[in-house]
Amino acid sequence: MMPAAYAVVDADALRHNLARVRQFAPASKVMAVVKANGYGHGLLRVADALREADGFAVARVQEGIALREAGFRQRIAVLQGYVDGEELAAHVAYELEPVIHSPEQIYLLEREPLPTPILPWLKLDSGMHRLGVSQEEFPICLRHLRRCPWVQQPIGLMTHLSNADLTADESTPEQVGLFRACVAHAAEYTSIANSAAIMAWPVTRADWVRPGIMLYGVSPFEGRCGEEEGLKPVMTLRSRLISVKWLRKGDRVGYAGDWVCEQDTRLGIAAIGYGDGYPRHAPSGTPVLVRGQRVGLAGRVSMDMITLDLSNCPDARVGDPVTLWGDGLPVEEIAAHAETIPYTLLCNVTQRVRILEKDAAGSAA
Amino acid sequence: MMPAAYAVVDADALRHNLARVRQFAPASKVMAVVKANGYGHGLLRVADALREADGFAVARVQEGIALREAGFRQRIAVLQGYVDGEELAAHVAYELEPVIHSPEQIYLLEREPLPTPILPWLKLDSGMHRLGVSQEEFPICLRHLRRCPWVQQPIGLMTHLSNADLTADESTPEQVGLFRACVAHAAEYTSIANSAAIMAWPVTRADWVRPGIMLYGVSPFEGRCGEEEGLKPVMTLRSRLISVKWLRKGDRVGYAGDWVCEQDTRLGIAAIGYGDGYPRHAPSGTPVLVRGQRVGLAGRVSMDMITLDLSNCPDARVGDPVTLWGDGLPVEEIAAHAETIPYTLLCNVTQRVRILEKDAAGSAA
Ligand SMILES: Cc1ncc(COP(=O)(O)O)c(CN[C@H](C)C(=O)O)c1O
Ligand SMILES: Cc1ncc(COP(=O)(O)O)c(CN[C@H](C)C(=O)O)c1O
Repeated sequence: MMPAAYAVVDADALRHNLARVRQFAPASKVMAVVKANGYGHGLLRVADALREADGFAVARVQEGIALREAGFRQRIAVLQGYVDGEELAAHVAYELEPVIHSPEQIYLLEREPLPTPILPWLKLDSGMHRLGVSQEEFPICLRHLRRCPWVQQPIGLMTHLSNADLTADESTPEQVGLFRACVAHAAEYTSIANSAAIMAWPVTRADWVRPGIMLYGVSPFEGRCGEEEGLKPVMTLRSRLISVKWLRKGDRVGYAGDWVCEQDTRLGIAAIGYGDGYPRHAPSGTPVLVRGQRVGLAGRVSMDMITLDLSNCPDARVGDPVTLWGDGLPVEEIAAHAETIPYTLLCNVTQRVRILEKDAAGSAA
Repeated sequence: MMPAAYAVVDADALRHNLARVRQFAPASKVMAVVKANGYGHGLLRVADALREADGFAVARVQEGIALREAGFRQRIAVLQGYVDGEELAAHVAYELEPVIHSPEQIYLLEREPLPTPILPWLKLDSGMHRLGVSQEEFPICLRHLRRCPWVQQPIGLMTHLSNADLTADESTPEQVGLFRACVAHAAEYTSIANSAAIMAWPVTRADWVRPGIMLYGVSPFEGRCGEEEGLKPVMTLRSRLISVKWLRKGDRVGYAGDWVCEQDTRLGIAAIGYGDGYPRHAPSGTPVLVRGQRVGLAGRVSMDMITLDLSNCPDARVGDPVTLWGDGLPVEEIAAHAETIPYTLLCNVTQRVRILEKDAAGSAA
């Protein structure tokens, strides 16, 4: 039995997008960013499709453990690293590469010998002021890591950009300049670029690149969509109509009744809502595909349902497929309607939505 | 090893809130609404804590099957019912009670004899214009259901209110009036009230009530919080500080750098973000508890992290517990900051967040 709401994940599109990363940065190794459940696409499924990547990046140690326990042998960087001895031990046990972003982590590392060597990254805060050691701390931290007997050499040096999606902004050159100054005479390998930087800032394509959103077929640039960047969308979010009915002019729809029929209207109800991760912030008029036809949301998004103005789609009937994004309706467009970014929409697809591989879903589509 | 981000669910609070429902509606049976993964609290965990309820309501047939497969024997209403023969058969096989909201569902039901009788509900659209048969269709639908040999008698009659949280609005009396007129001479039992109606509209406390949000300790009324209604909050969402550092006056924090330090500032970074379900719409200044102290978000919510202005909490250090809601910080308040409703925040906690029982989490708190 098919679930009402499901997401189809296209492994070929993931592979295509990885190839696209390599076109942009042919000399770089690729650390595929698969944190937050593979940006909502399913961690293990995404990692499997992207097994030709040179490594993976996750945010938290548990995500790294999940990859190892599923048998992945690639390099895995843990972007938040460890906060205590127990988490440090887990990095060692599972051969995870912590990203060291504060001096405290180095004290913890030096405290006592590790049973086997560890291969950390050192992160510089070059201006985003989130994780990373300061410019002043950087040389001391690097020195400590170089001479710690249980740290494998060479380590990687990393920074993260706050504004790479703004192609005319000064902060990227400033951040890159600061990073380059800090790593100038280092023999270590380096990594700077997220998706936006990979595409827009050639100077950031260092030894390793760290693409996230572009692997999922989504553009990091406001007002653009993945296909314009040569990417293929990976996730299609679908449901179906569970009710179709005529309303009369003046009828009010949904909670608070703030959508009012301006004329007699055919209303469709689809089985997907914010309890599935469809954004409650999406206002009336947000496009939805019914039988491939664009129609608009009518009234508030409920927990398990949305209501649709079927004026554009007179043949719609119960059971018809509904696409919330994908199938030619870019998730970027839905994000703009909901006043958020596509990253959030993808990550927030909930566990009630079954994730299917593209082939398996073919017949249901 | 404790996960960075976790939610503590308090089974005693769930039971307290169920008792509170019974105080409001002592003569009514209680159908506990546990759809959308128990409003994000974990379907099976919630159902177990609420096993003294007279029944459960879910949105979709799969949620009902999950309850049956876990061994729950209570009555289970499926608010969206079935769209095809396969789903109808699943209702029969798992003894689920479909809510019939359209004439098509009745045609499907009458088409061929069922192996065992079914106990449906019939839903009237009394003005919300979401699911439900119209006033005109209602008597015919009821007649068909009464004389169908494989429909168990008596069935339940139901409607849903669109504006019960607006205590001075005319739509609730209108909807109730229409429903009462439709069911006037029926021998069937009835159900009208969601949480807001249970609390604010005594006339809606019919044979069955259908509380959702109040069971989770949250007020359905804007500008109020659960504790003011005699409810106990059920979910506490927690993480911890993974970095604490000094920034200088003028430093910009996070993506787009739109939070600027007005003076030298201690910044804290907590391991929770929109990839865990913390709302990306929460703006700078949204309150967060660090060591029980209120501090404000500083800059954009990232996928795996938030950044905090620690000026109010000078002793904060790495590893300190952080509470996003719960522990005296009402989820209603966070929802107001994020321009959404608490329902969404609760439902959208993602699978990366481990759900712990209150006792188990005690030592970690
Ligand atoms: C350190 C780091 N590197 C690389 C990436 C990949 O970024 P992108 O998806 O734009 O290619 C991220 C993602 N960050 C997320 C989006 C965040 O922290 O909010 C990251 O935190
Ligand atoms: C038919 C029905 N009955 C009862 C409830 C419980 O409502 P509350 O949580 O306010 O007590 C709901 C929830 N509705 C959700 C919120 C929705 O459809 O968006 C419902 O759809």
